[in-house]
Amino acid sequence: MGGGLPQFARPMNAAPISPVYRIPHPLPLDSGQELEGAEIAYETYGALAPDASNAVLICHALTGDQYLASPHPITGKPGWWERMVGPGKPIDTDRHFVICANVIGSCMGSSGPASPAPDGQPYAMRFPVITIRDMVRGLVALLDGLGIARLHAVVGGSMGGMQALSLAANWPERAVRVLVIAATARHSAQNIAFHEVGRQAIMADPAWADGNYYESEAKPDNGLAVARMAAHITYLSEAGLTEKFGRRLQDRPDGTKGAKSFGFDADFQVESYLRYQGSGFTRRFDANSYLYITRAMDYFDIAEEFADVPGSGKLADAFAGTQARFCIVSFDTDWLYPTAESRHVVHALNAAGAKVSFVELSAPHGHDSFLLEHDQLDRVVKGFVE
Amino acid sequence: MGGGLPQFARPMNAAPISPVYRIPHPLPLDSGQELEGAEIAYETYGALAPDASNAVLICHALTGDQYLASPHPITGKPGWWERMVGPGKPIDTDRHFVICANVIGSCMGSSGPASPAPDGQPYAMRFPVITIRDMVRGLVALLDGLGIARLHAVVGGSMGGMQALSLAANWPERAVRVLVIAATARHSAQNIAFHEVGRQAIMADPAWADGNYYESEAKPDNGLAVARMAAHITYLSEAGLTEKFGRRLQDRPDGTKGAKSFGFDADFQVESYLRYQGSGFTRRFDANSYLYITRAMDYFDIAEEFADVPGSGKLADAFAGTQARFCIVSFDTDWLYPTAESRHVVHALNAAGAKVSFVELSAPHGHDSFLLEHDQLDRVVKGFVE
Repeated sequence: MGGGLPQFARPMNAAPISPVYRIPHPLPLDSGQELEGAEIAYETYGALAPDASNAVLICHALTGDQYLASPHPITGKPGWWERMVGPGKPIDTDRHFVICANVIGSCMGSSGPASPAPDGQPYAMRFPVITIRDMVRGLVALLDGLGIARLHAVVGGSMGGMQALSLAANWPERAVRVLVIAATARHSAQNIAFHEVGRQAIMADPAWADGNYYESEAKPDNGLAVARMAAHITYLSEAGLTEKFGRRLQDRPDGTKGAKSFGFDADFQVESYLRYQGSGFTRRFDANSYLYITRAMDYFDIAEEFADVPGSGKLADAFAGTQARFCIVSFDTDWLYPTAESRHVVHALNAAGAKVSFVELSAPHGHDSFLLEHDQLDRVVKGFVE
Repeated sequence: MGGGLPQFARPMNAAPISPVYRIPHPLPLDSGQELEGAEIAYETYGALAPDASNAVLICHALTGDQYLASPHPITGKPGWWERMVGPGKPIDTDRHFVICANVIGSCMGSSGPASPAPDGQPYAMRFPVITIRDMVRGLVALLDGLGIARLHAVVGGSMGGMQALSLAANWPERAVRVLVIAATARHSAQNIAFHEVGRQAIMADPAWADGNYYESEAKPDNGLAVARMAAHITYLSEAGLTEKFGRRLQDRPDGTKGAKSFGFDADFQVESYLRYQGSGFTRRFDANSYLYITRAMDYFDIAEEFADVPGSGKLADAFAGTQARFCIVSFDTDWLYPTAESRHVVHALNAAGAKVSFVELSAPHGHDSFLLEHDQLDRVVKGFVE
């Protein structure tokens, strides 16, 4: 890898590609397998202090990547958290050394199904199934490589928050502060169900070809787009969708203003928006990575990891003896990982005697609120990470 | 049509096929088109009184049909509301003449995309796009054919409730009682979004072939199954899914009890359940019908129908001067058509001076509660229809 865009990508511009760290030992995985020669692509912002005390690791969400505060090399769009990370911003790169790495299993330069296996061909579905903890193993290896023994803070929203919790539970000495936004300590039946719909949509696409499409002209773009559309609905609140689109109709190609076509074109603005979200996504994301990462999220249940007998795990046990300070943030309209899931984490942290603050923020836009303009979130992040 | 199972069907047994009423005039449609020779397949239960005063029309939901209280000819399963309709049951066929008809656009014997067009070939996507009001036009034509001027009651859940509201608004003299369960007077942006995912899943399936698959071996079953899976999640509550499945794992084919496979088989019981729902559905439902009926639901907005200027409709205007008695029922865990939508209908009916009662029932299972065992619902239905 390295030195170019990932194999699946259809680049838009020639923005620079991230540095890649090659993990110098086989990466052990929860499945019992090992990943030999795993690579982690990452971006950094700011400068590491001589004593390495100012590092902040930011973990990305399902379809995110390391382009946190720099333009995305495929879409050309600004980084996904530019408003939060930069000089003078809530996570201030004048003071902190910020690291964001593409997770194992993803497709922006870190080892994943699109990467070459030892035989030189893409792994495709031969890539081992990974977990959130495996992703964090990769991140910890990167921190070792960068000479960072202890993070000033680990921060993440959504799947990024799951990684932050996993790091705090499994490597408690590695982070002084743990900030978890719009996340959960376990995937619910409904969460799994929505992901399963997405996986079935991809695997039903004949172009998926059991995952062996890297050499083909045809990619499973239709299936991946449907998966993205279904997931995207869960990222937004019902009220947010109503406010943004309501039942407003598109203007017709023939110039008719907002009239029903009595056909199957995208009559409603919300239909058009979803189709755009679906097709845009296929340009920057690998369908097999979508399978692997959703699987990792569905397997996520920290209490279970710490249980002697499967199913009997107590979440508090996962955080026993932690010295870290925690901040847990939820959004009142997030129905993907609702506030109740955050409270569940807070109660466990309390039971474990951890230092924890919790805030439920009011926001109209559901789960995706953590990516959007939100002054209160900015203040919470700034106050905690500072 | 008539005299056999519909073209798309793969029958399981030889249960009798419903009688079919051929509408003796062209059926006008909201699109401005007309449907010539439209047919309505229906079932009846009980006996019509000499003065035709005891007729109860029950309207079915999106994927329902006329097999309300008799076995389904494809699946062999009991009727979808057998617990509610029959001798001595809440809707008592010893006293009432109960009619349930397959809606126009569907696929169990009424005219729809699988039906032969005048040229003898299936309509497929040449079938006109219909609305909920068009479905009700078909039902009213059937009532005319059966000699029923005025219904003792019209009853429906989900899309059936939309039809009941549409009948009350557009043919106010045709029903004395209107019972609307788990429904809405308009489809929200989120409702439309979920349906659009389903339509895109079907249309992305190469076997859909622009709707011309009736003569092919290959049917768009994969796409239809994904559509059904996505929709099915919206029929259940998050808590209901958690109660029913939680994060419980399937036993592995090799006999291992509830262990993760670290693969992409259905590890979780909820995955297996959804896959079963999806594949079972394709045996009894036509993919094109799914496109047409979801479209009709998305177009549904009674206030808009009664508006002079699109977008300015007042729902109360739709019910001005109604003499019918209304009963509106919602379920507290229904997030597809939440209680707020029912309240919106109730407020409009109040503003129109209608006689209306409203009850929100507590039920753990979300939208699908109207199909499930629920003593309080039984009492409400019995008390109102009696």
